[in-house]
Amino acid sequence: MTEQKALSKSLRVAVLAAAASTGFAAQADEGMWMPSQLPGIAGQLRQAGFQGDPASLADLTRPPMSAVVSLGGCTASFVSPRGLVVTNHHCAMGAIQLNSTPQNNLIANGFNAATQAQEVSAGPAARVFVTTAFERITDRILADARGKTGRAYYDVVDAASKAVVAECEQEAGYRCSVANMYYGTDFYLVRQLELKDIRLVYAPPEAIGNYGDEIDNFMWPRHSGDFAFYRAYVGKDGKPAAFSADNVPYQPPAYLTVSTDPVAEGDFAMLAGYPGTTYRHRMAMEFADQVQAGLPWRVDVLGALIGTIESASAASQDAQVRYASQLAGLKNGLKRAQGELDGLRRSEAVRVRREDEAAMLAWLARQPDAAATRADIEAAQALIAQSHASRERDQLFGLMRSQTQLLKSAYQLQRLAAERGKPDPQRERGYQQRDEALIEGALKQVQRRYDPMVEKALLAELLRRYRALPANQRIAEVDAVFGRDAAATQAALDTLYAQTRLGEEAERLRLLAAAPADVAAAADPLLRAAAQLLPAVLREEDADKARGGDLLRLRPAYMRALIGYRQSQGRAVYPDANSTLRVSYGKVSALEPRDGVHYVPLTTVAGILEKHTGQAPFDAPAPLREAIAKGDFGSTADPVLKTQTVDFMTNLDTTGGNSGSPVLDARGRLIGLNFDSNWEAVSASWMYDPRYKRAIHVDVRYLRWLLAKVYPAPHLLREMNLPAE
Amino acid sequence: MTEQKALSKSLRVAVLAAAASTGFAAQADEGMWMPSQLPGIAGQLRQAGFQGDPASLADLTRPPMSAVVSLGGCTASFVSPRGLVVTNHHCAMGAIQLNSTPQNNLIANGFNAATQAQEVSAGPAARVFVTTAFERITDRILADARGKTGRAYYDVVDAASKAVVAECEQEAGYRCSVANMYYGTDFYLVRQLELKDIRLVYAPPEAIGNYGDEIDNFMWPRHSGDFAFYRAYVGKDGKPAAFSADNVPYQPPAYLTVSTDPVAEGDFAMLAGYPGTTYRHRMAMEFADQVQAGLPWRVDVLGALIGTIESASAASQDAQVRYASQLAGLKNGLKRAQGELDGLRRSEAVRVRREDEAAMLAWLARQPDAAATRADIEAAQALIAQSHASRERDQLFGLMRSQTQLLKSAYQLQRLAAERGKPDPQRERGYQQRDEALIEGALKQVQRRYDPMVEKALLAELLRRYRALPANQRIAEVDAVFGRDAAATQAALDTLYAQTRLGEEAERLRLLAAAPADVAAAADPLLRAAAQLLPAVLREEDADKARGGDLLRLRPAYMRALIGYRQSQGRAVYPDANSTLRVSYGKVSALEPRDGVHYVPLTTVAGILEKHTGQAPFDAPAPLREAIAKGDFGSTADPVLKTQTVDFMTNLDTTGGNSGSPVLDARGRLIGLNFDSNWEAVSASWMYDPRYKRAIHVDVRYLRWLLAKVYPAPHLLREMNLPAE
Repeated sequence: MTEQKALSKSLRVAVLAAAASTGFAAQADEGMWMPSQLPGIAGQLRQAGFQGDPASLADLTRPPMSAVVSLGGCTASFVSPRGLVVTNHHCAMGAIQLNSTPQNNLIANGFNAATQAQEVSAGPAARVFVTTAFERITDRILADARGKTGRAYYDVVDAASKAVVAECEQEAGYRCSVANMYYGTDFYLVRQLELKDIRLVYAPPEAIGNYGDEIDNFMWPRHSGDFAFYRAYVGKDGKPAAFSADNVPYQPPAYLTVSTDPVAEGDFAMLAGYPGTTYRHRMAMEFADQVQAGLPWRVDVLGALIGTIESASAASQDAQVRYASQLAGLKNGLKRAQGELDGLRRSEAVRVRREDEAAMLAWLARQPDAAATRADIEAAQALIAQSHASRERDQLFGLMRSQTQLLKSAYQLQRLAAERGKPDPQRERGYQQRDEALIEGALKQVQRRYDPMVEKALLAELLRRYRALPANQRIAEVDAVFGRDAAATQAALDTLYAQTRLGEEAERLRLLAAAPADVAAAADPLLRAAAQLLPAVLREEDADKARGGDLLRLRPAYMRALIGYRQSQGRAVYPDANSTLRVSYGKVSALEPRDGVHYVPLTTVAGILEKHTGQAPFDAPAPLREAIAKGDFGSTADPVLKTQTVDFMTNLDTTGGNSGSPVLDARGRLIGLNFDSNWEAVSASWMYDPRYKRAIHVDVRYLRWLLAKVYPAPHLLREMNLPAE
Repeated sequence: MTEQKALSKSLRVAVLAAAASTGFAAQADEGMWMPSQLPGIAGQLRQAGFQGDPASLADLTRPPMSAVVSLGGCTASFVSPRGLVVTNHHCAMGAIQLNSTPQNNLIANGFNAATQAQEVSAGPAARVFVTTAFERITDRILADARGKTGRAYYDVVDAASKAVVAECEQEAGYRCSVANMYYGTDFYLVRQLELKDIRLVYAPPEAIGNYGDEIDNFMWPRHSGDFAFYRAYVGKDGKPAAFSADNVPYQPPAYLTVSTDPVAEGDFAMLAGYPGTTYRHRMAMEFADQVQAGLPWRVDVLGALIGTIESASAASQDAQVRYASQLAGLKNGLKRAQGELDGLRRSEAVRVRREDEAAMLAWLARQPDAAATRADIEAAQALIAQSHASRERDQLFGLMRSQTQLLKSAYQLQRLAAERGKPDPQRERGYQQRDEALIEGALKQVQRRYDPMVEKALLAELLRRYRALPANQRIAEVDAVFGRDAAATQAALDTLYAQTRLGEEAERLRLLAAAPADVAAAADPLLRAAAQLLPAVLREEDADKARGGDLLRLRPAYMRALIGYRQSQGRAVYPDANSTLRVSYGKVSALEPRDGVHYVPLTTVAGILEKHTGQAPFDAPAPLREAIAKGDFGSTADPVLKTQTVDFMTNLDTTGGNSGSPVLDARGRLIGLNFDSNWEAVSASWMYDPRYKRAIHVDVRYLRWLLAKVYPAPHLLREMNLPAE
């Protein structure tokens, strides 16, 4: 999977903490470090080969870290004083698509603006976020929380965060967010300049930018030129502004120097970006649950849903087409879940984490505040165990809404009707005014993705599993709507789907526009069913938030114990990833994925020709093939391999959200762009196993060669101070 | 594919030639050398690392070559003075299966005779052939051929060969054959002692001997313990005898010493065995035809037949079961053809061979006898072009008989009826008395592999392609039986299959037992059709033999030119493989199968656990997994890897028939057993590409460890003079 994260922007939150980490030595090459932690691990950074001053990396508002920006889900970086931004091709895909026409298909042909005037808008939603301030605000966020528990704790933290953000965003052109670091231990305010006039400057053809597509996805060896250039523009006053022909290039506070040196196995490398979510510091019981119950259950259910769709649509080509996308999503989910399970087992993650936690608790027992800390940890464990106990029920109930089309529509219509009664800011996320267009789009799409036979079969399978749960797991509303045994369920499904009119697009859109009270009182049986189920959903959400509040209160005890224990070992603790800026360091690394196989960490253009079939996704464009055959690689050729490199692999610590992250050498110069991980590392969100965790990058020498010799953009090379060939 | 070749034993022919090769230097590591050629390439053998005396390898009736025996399709070797034979597990599969019962499944459990008394018969058909004499008899074979052409040349060579064999086999216990070396240039008589009392001594469970099965087939890295032990017995008089409890172990003229030294990348290795067929010295036009027409056509037709079976059986689960085996065979054939095509293109085989041949012809033009030689070569080329011109037609006609069940049965019954009128030795191969049991078995099997819808669809597809051929390719008999257009063909097929009674097993067996004249006159429409087609088959066979006779006469001119040209380059020429004993030498070699991937040439037991799923073919037995976990590898552990190796890879030159071949070290000691090639080398039957040609072997250290620690056979270790652990 490419390392892009579809982040709900309303949730995007980015703060850095000056954590209790100074002077620690960390596990070699593992870690998504907050820049502020880097001076504290300066010794190990230098030992690993970094030749700059670690202190210079500590402040993300100053160069070079201020050159690293977020696109909202992807990472990018400035590479010229005139606002030139480099990121992944797949991160710029929306902009490429937007500017494509049947006459000029930029996806197929690529794009190369000869002058600034020819640069095209990346669209009104495109953003570049430049961090301008950050501040620890733990005391303010938790001021009113002391002494509270459960839902009250949650609500106080939520309200304080919203107030801080609202205050911070009073100045136009800025976007603010609050980040929760170390699971509620600390909170930070991040203020970002929100650049809104973003233009597409250069993109290779998709057959280069996404060479290998789904087949090579997650795989090494890789031969993708996954890069594209944007330019950020601002108003003539230098302030963020929407697209206008009068706008001028933004002058960033810093930009990266592109390296002209070769890259080789063992070289130091570092990477900065906005990794989304990791679970490295979850408790041992959570690791065990994931490996022993969560993932196996997920594999089982996804497999069953795949089988259900396949048999229910076996006789109908039409139904097969309608469910192709949902089926592909389920298969991808199953593959990932199985890969994560295999990886966690291969790494013996449960045993490793359990032994580590036991040692931590033994250390804790010898500390002065052991009893209170231990009590909080045990209280948190009890809450987690509680959520595990109802997980299958909760997830089955969720799948009934997410894996259906008509029932989901009915539920969305009822939920929206209920939420419309509240002031907009108090509405549930996903049901605010700005979400209504999205809901309308989904209600329109139903027609292309729905078949009553298949939807009934999916619900029958989910309800069969639901009925097999222990009696104390039953939900009264679900039983009332779908009955308590197989016969009743089948009868209920037959009636609901025979009588509902939600299969008609006009009817769904009419209900979307109807008054909330009319929706709530509508007689359509599926809408009635949704109205009956709604209280159960709200009850579950409320319980989640109450538990969430208590975990926000209790988990910090565990984190403080872990940080203290690591300190006693002379090691620092990086916070789990939460979409805030992090730095990883390591080296260009080979991989032994399995016995007898060795992956070389650099690929070459020879591999492009080897994979070329003429059919997508292996349809290397003729100009590329001709240039490879010609062998004119100039200054971008590798001095040892005597040919042009394409991608390279490091052991850098990454996860989803790191797409587009600049990969830097020992002197902080740009040597690559991160764009994927290897399949063996799919379990790395839980555990970094140095034997298997690798990150996959475009070599900037490939980028330079394409710009110099294949789809020439000499003006961009000049702008980046790079040799013409 | 495992390197076993199902050889028609009546065709087995083994002779060595003292070829015109003394003093040549060959292409490094390419070559299936006749032992008699080895003294001539002694320099390069020693340079490659061989530490013995090349002269000692020259005579295959003396040690150590006399330790290398044929099982008829597989190679094996003696490893003790008491007739102990080691070969591949897959070569001993027939014997293992024969001795399996529901109560004692040797396939699943393996077999380990604690004493000689417990060794079990490998069955009445099992053989070990020990070469005892060889003699160049070119003059005798060709004595009456001079001046003849075409079919007459063929018949004279055939008659002379049969006479020589009959004379040689007058002494009981011997099997003789004539080998054609360098495409008719030389003929040799091989005399072999035919040992008939072969007993199974030891076999690991299939989950070790065939670990990975079809999934790992042709693949590296590999983790298969593909070995088993036989013992050859003779009568008390020391002469070959059928199984008898009174028989005694055979005392071989030589046996191999099993190495106790480690194996490492770069080590010298050599291999002796009976490779089946290669095409390395075919003409450039044959290479071009194979790549440009033969293989693409094969890929196309096999794909079409696969599609035909799949659609014709889509609605019937029953038909799908009946055609599962034929479908698997076609898919395997398609995969191989595509792999061969891809490999020949990757190696640019046509260009390489064409340039080499052009250089040879340029050299030839400067030789005294150039004109006559060139005339013969051109005559041969014309004949080959002729056979290429009708290849599609001939192969389609062949597929009509080989890919059907009822039409094939009808044809076999008519052909047998025709052949039964001749004295047995003059009957066509496959229709002699000894073949009748096989035909009966096939006629019985029809019931399990036949569905009229599918067979008609297959014939319709083949006939559709046949009808699309140029008019001059049409066969009158085929047109008469199946009509000249689609409608006529469909009507003919409908009538034939509606009215035939050959779908009934009793009817087929009745016809098998019936008098030839009654079969020839039978009214069954499918039998009538076969009778109508028979003259066309006979005509085609006759034309093949006539062309074969002329090529036998003309190809030697090409071979003499090639040998002379190579000699001028200081290089020797090994004859193309023809199931006679050959020796390859090379080294333990890594492989770069594609850009970014490096295959390490030794695998370890860690890979067994990595692949283990608990489900066949990756269901490593518990005793093996426990022994691996225990890590007690004793003297068989690799000193560098610090663990137990399993398989290793060399660049030795092999092909089908080399299964079970002993792999020897620089001092001639047994270090492995050959059992497969890598996928990248599937085109090696035409061209040895040193970048991709590898052979895959069981490491004898794995064998020793299994015998010492996992399924102990301390008596066998003692018998082979090996340490107990």
